[in-house]
Amino acid sequence: MTIKDIAERCGVSVSTVSRVLNHHPDVSESVRARVLEAAREAHYVPNNSARDLVRTRSDGIGLVVRGVGNPFYSKVIHAVERAIDGAGYSLVLHQIGSDDDELLAGATISRSKKLQGLIFLGGKGNYTAEDIVILDVPFVCCTYTVPFTRLPRESYSSVAIDDRKEAYRAVKLLLDRGCRKIGILLNARDDRSIGELRYMGYCRALEEAGIRVDETLVEETGTFALPNVYKAAKCLLERRGDLDGVFAIADSMAMAAIKALHDAGRSVPGDCSVTAIDGIEMSAYMLPTLTTMAQPQSELGTAAVKTLVDMIQGRCGNRHILLPASLRVGGSVAPAE
Amino acid sequence: MTIKDIAERCGVSVSTVSRVLNHHPDVSESVRARVLEAAREAHYVPNNSARDLVRTRSDGIGLVVRGVGNPFYSKVIHAVERAIDGAGYSLVLHQIGSDDDELLAGATISRSKKLQGLIFLGGKGNYTAEDIVILDVPFVCCTYTVPFTRLPRESYSSVAIDDRKEAYRAVKLLLDRGCRKIGILLNARDDRSIGELRYMGYCRALEEAGIRVDETLVEETGTFALPNVYKAAKCLLERRGDLDGVFAIADSMAMAAIKALHDAGRSVPGDCSVTAIDGIEMSAYMLPTLTTMAQPQSELGTAAVKTLVDMIQGRCGNRHILLPASLRVGGSVAPAE
Repeated sequence: MTIKDIAERCGVSVSTVSRVLNHHPDVSESVRARVLEAAREAHYVPNNSARDLVRTRSDGIGLVVRGVGNPFYSKVIHAVERAIDGAGYSLVLHQIGSDDDELLAGATISRSKKLQGLIFLGGKGNYTAEDIVILDVPFVCCTYTVPFTRLPRESYSSVAIDDRKEAYRAVKLLLDRGCRKIGILLNARDDRSIGELRYMGYCRALEEAGIRVDETLVEETGTFALPNVYKAAKCLLERRGDLDGVFAIADSMAMAAIKALHDAGRSVPGDCSVTAIDGIEMSAYMLPTLTTMAQPQSELGTAAVKTLVDMIQGRCGNRHILLPASLRVGGSVAPAE
Repeated sequence: MTIKDIAERCGVSVSTVSRVLNHHPDVSESVRARVLEAAREAHYVPNNSARDLVRTRSDGIGLVVRGVGNPFYSKVIHAVERAIDGAGYSLVLHQIGSDDDELLAGATISRSKKLQGLIFLGGKGNYTAEDIVILDVPFVCCTYTVPFTRLPRESYSSVAIDDRKEAYRAVKLLLDRGCRKIGILLNARDDRSIGELRYMGYCRALEEAGIRVDETLVEETGTFALPNVYKAAKCLLERRGDLDGVFAIADSMAMAAIKALHDAGRSVPGDCSVTAIDGIEMSAYMLPTLTTMAQPQSELGTAAVKTLVDMIQGRCGNRHILLPASLRVGGSVAPAE
């Protein structure tokens, strides 16, 4: 696959493809995105040495966020901002939609803003070596890792919690408090990202306790949008009125689940205990307050910036950091007997 | 006051001041901010015609947000982003802290990114004509207006709700449901911004009902941070255990207030009804669900962009748009008798 093939595929001239791949600014964003997408599909590898000679960089670090409105990201973004500022770089904040491709978005802004590096806040866990070819700067996956492919660990950095383990702990707590019919609310079991990892943790906790995973207790919501999660939780309750515990993979999902339980006439934690993962501020002010595995939100952001800056400045290569979540006990779980 | 005076005051050379005022990129952000601040304090008015001749602009529109983590801004930001994209411009998202000066931040990014215009999400209501001199592009105040000074209405645009009126409606609803001892939770009565306006609405509703405003029912929280609001609500309840209604000027404040009421052994709405302003998604999933004046979040963002783009493209001058909030009835208010 040559530049000419990419040009034909995109219906643009060879010089346009060249301008995109060589980071010239005089290309529209839509053409730029199209060409990068085609280059990636074609596994096109640019000639780095020639490119780097002509390139000048800004002092910008890009933060690609999957929805700045996600309450879990709020403290992470603050910490990233402070750390970037403290390190003498400037933040370029770029928001993408829930279905957007973070790598393509990152590659596009990296070129148009001549960034030094990228931090992805939220993303997929199945990048391949070919997927990341379009990224021409160091990058850090923040709040997630890439465990679902053979992507060499030295080709990217990550700062996250151990999703499987923290999900295991959240479900183990329900088991310890006597729950046996434990439902799970999650976006999808096979999202190749945190949904799948947290589902694995749920399964492991049940299996360790000698409980078979019961399909009728697994509810996939498709999205994290509260109205959808609320509807899904209602379906779960209609199907399994006898459940005595719910593990929601996010605090916001747990809020919708607790409302659904309440609206179905079931008390929390009297009839059903609820745990989650995240530790957003608001879930400590709901009634009952949520029992959750609180992610170290500020530390995740700070460590992501430190890792990236070390890479940019050549002080280290790629790094993978797992930070522990901490149990925040609320009123949503029945007291220990 | 001349450029020379500004240079002396800032301890930099005349050519540096000139570079800042003429938007050259080769000045550090800290020097740029210092010079702009001094120029503003000095009411320095640059020679626009000469400046505009040499200036070339990007297609960027700046969105200066006072905290992207504020849950109320989430849908507004989404709408702004969609509308900017739809109009063929590109969004430059810039976050500032709660104590930062939005005008200075806007002036700085407008120059460094050569923006076409600015939208401020959250700001003060007492700008003077001298304050806004540093802004060299059209701008729109989004979710607030500037009623506290004699700033000519033709010198800026705004898109907001009528804060006084919607606060009046939220308190009137409490009065209609039989509340007579109505507390108010607000950041400050004299913030020259939405706190002050919503306090005016609270006072008007009480006075119309023949109830004198009682100092002991007014609780100023200082900030919107939930731990502070919760503490302030506890103080209010300790001082006035007999209150039968609470108006919180933001949904998030109402959540903290309802938790404080619950922790003090008082039921909502049995012992005390609660109303607020905002209409964030999560407050419809708390227990009890919140009764609130829901701001038209998406419409505020869309109208702000439309106004700004019309100004940039010369299709209209400044505009002031007030959009109505809509009552979202929840379980936090006692039913009508």
